[in-house]
Amino acid sequence: MLVAVFTDFGLEGPYTGQMKAVLHRDAPGVPVVDLLADAPVFDPRASAYLLAALVPALPAGSVVLGVVDPGVGSDRGAVMVEADDCWYVGPDNGLFALVVRRARTARAFPVFEAPGAVSASFHGRDVFAPAAARLACGERPERGAARAPATVDRPDWPDDLDRIVYIDRYGNAMTGLRAGRLDPGAELVAHGRPARRARTFSDVPVGQAFWYENANGLAELAVNQGRAADALALRPGDAIGIRDPR
Amino acid sequence: MLVAVFTDFGLEGPYTGQMKAVLHRDAPGVPVVDLLADAPVFDPRASAYLLAALVPALPAGSVVLGVVDPGVGSDRGAVMVEADDCWYVGPDNGLFALVVRRARTARAFPVFEAPGAVSASFHGRDVFAPAAARLACGERPERGAARAPATVDRPDWPDDLDRIVYIDRYGNAMTGLRAGRLDPGAELVAHGRPARRARTFSDVPVGQAFWYENANGLAELAVNQGRAADALALRPGDAIGIRDPR
Amino acid sequence: MLVAVFTDFGLEGPYTGQMKAVLHRDAPGVPVVDLLADAPVFDPRASAYLLAALVPALPAGSVVLGVVDPGVGSDRGAVMVEADDCWYVGPDNGLFALVVRRARTARAFPVFEAPGAVSASFHGRDVFAPAAARLACGERPERGAARAPATVDRPDWPDDLDRIVYIDRYGNAMTGLRAGRLDPGAELVAHGRPARRARTFSDVPVGQAFWYENANGLAELAVNQGRAADALALRPGDAIGIRDPR
Repeated sequence: MLVAVFTDFGLEGPYTGQMKAVLHRDAPGVPVVDLLADAPVFDPRASAYLLAALVPALPAGSVVLGVVDPGVGSDRGAVMVEADDCWYVGPDNGLFALVVRRARTARAFPVFEAPGAVSASFHGRDVFAPAAARLACGERPERGAARAPATVDRPDWPDDLDRIVYIDRYGNAMTGLRAGRLDPGAELVAHGRPARRARTFSDVPVGQAFWYENANGLAELAVNQGRAADALALRPGDAIGIRDPR
Repeated sequence: MLVAVFTDFGLEGPYTGQMKAVLHRDAPGVPVVDLLADAPVFDPRASAYLLAALVPALPAGSVVLGVVDPGVGSDRGAVMVEADDCWYVGPDNGLFALVVRRARTARAFPVFEAPGAVSASFHGRDVFAPAAARLACGERPERGAARAPATVDRPDWPDDLDRIVYIDRYGNAMTGLRAGRLDPGAELVAHGRPARRARTFSDVPVGQAFWYENANGLAELAVNQGRAADALALRPGDAIGIRDPR
Repeated sequence: MLVAVFTDFGLEGPYTGQMKAVLHRDAPGVPVVDLLADAPVFDPRASAYLLAALVPALPAGSVVLGVVDPGVGSDRGAVMVEADDCWYVGPDNGLFALVVRRARTARAFPVFEAPGAVSASFHGRDVFAPAAARLACGERPERGAARAPATVDRPDWPDDLDRIVYIDRYGNAMTGLRAGRLDPGAELVAHGRPARRARTFSDVPVGQAFWYENANGLAELAVNQGRAADALALRPGDAIGIRDPR
């Protein structure tokens, strides 16, 4: 049992720390792990593909506190989702859409009522963290409140996103495409430049761009001993073409 | 019970990790939360206003390990403070001044003696973390050693600081002014440009600067869908004017 | 008992969080501390001197999960080392060489077999973290598997490294030289400019470069109220000369 925190807050600043203080207050003894603090800023769609790729590596029973929430303070919904063996708490803006779609079973529930005053700008601390703590303590919502996760999924979003969703500190560029869904002979095309698949870095010449299946199953653009993001001028959100082998 | 760490160390580098290793060694089982690692560098005064704003969200009984300590290695004092329901450990340079002033009750004590060798440059690890761990384990200083926190407070510092104390990753600029102390009709003036109050981002046109009460009660300058720090050329320490309504 | 994580992953991105999720899954209740997340990127040699300097401040019994692993996916070895009172798990690329050399006793073992599928690019999560968790739970390798840590040490690496191994957020530049091994009158020479020793920052005029023994025993170049890395144009890996007093 652990609470995994997935946000676009960054680790700097007080936001992550204040959420964790609530988690430790309300769920003492439950470990809290920073799963990702620099999810695509203000972009629930790109974040949804990244989160869905990270989930399979979490222990069964984990609670995911997911906050990428540009609509905080508006009337966007809030949701708790039970999908396969894990729980998810956060805004109902599509952040959990791909988790839900890829799950064998999923149900959605209203978020537990906030225990105190709710600020206009920090529902992560005031609404979602207290709810995650209650789930981590074993509390469950009323079964009667369950609904199919219709509003959680985004039917118009594709099964795999042909865009850059994350650039890591080494300059590698993750796409929202699951490598297992691509033809092994397919090339990925970034700004008109095609890249072939390789198993790993040392399989291509120094300086050459390629793509490979990363440790979370996503197709990732990389350059052997270089920075793919710089070499290919890639930024989060950039479109990636798929050129299937003839 | 938790130890909340408030420093200007940054999360990069070994400093925060080494302090936490001491906390886990000396207070096993007590959770440690990074409350803020990028407090205003070398600036105990600005840090003091920020810390005081974050404290109300901490669970009762928390121990705050606060280290913004440009005078380390000099003869600046060191202090443990009991203020309302929490304890504070760190340098006696004003970092806890606003916490003390806003507390209903506060007492100051000498810091527990360091358990081992004390380096010249890292009292956070060698002096303050071991003391915080002892407090977290329930140990208390001799009551006879208590003194009024006269040296902890800084009588010449104002109750609210009309300066920027923090700029977050979204470019929002927090002031040291508590929003509840400002007239709702007041404008904040940054480099000659006035900004009115709004409830939250979506209440103003895209690109417009405004100020609002942030989740910790501070007046914060922001721009809807923009970066206030860039739009208004704000940096930590910049003075902010207050123009009351006529 | 704690697991200290030493990597070049950075805290951003999902890598550290995914390793920690494994640690909490496999060693529930054992605290995990980020000892250093920004070790010299792709540089096991510089990292080895930095790690060896940080180890003495760890509690006895700690498990160090050390991953600076540019050879991941190649046939570089993997190793578990028992050195004095601590365990180390990671790639057998010299990362633990200085720890081993400075230990009173050290033995090396093959890494516990990975519990599941092993990705080509993330042995930190798939191989080393599960092994660290087992060590943290008290499991030990077969004594018969022990060998002298011959392949772990790097006989051609010096006892102290006359290079910059880390630059911190204040612009201070750590060398791989233990201060206690240097003549107190020695000057350190960076790009032709000599710097004398001082006890700490306030002992030299503002703006003057000097070196001092940092809190981990390393010789560190600094500038009073300035950034040594900028003033002396220092970068990780730069060579540092030693000019002994006449």
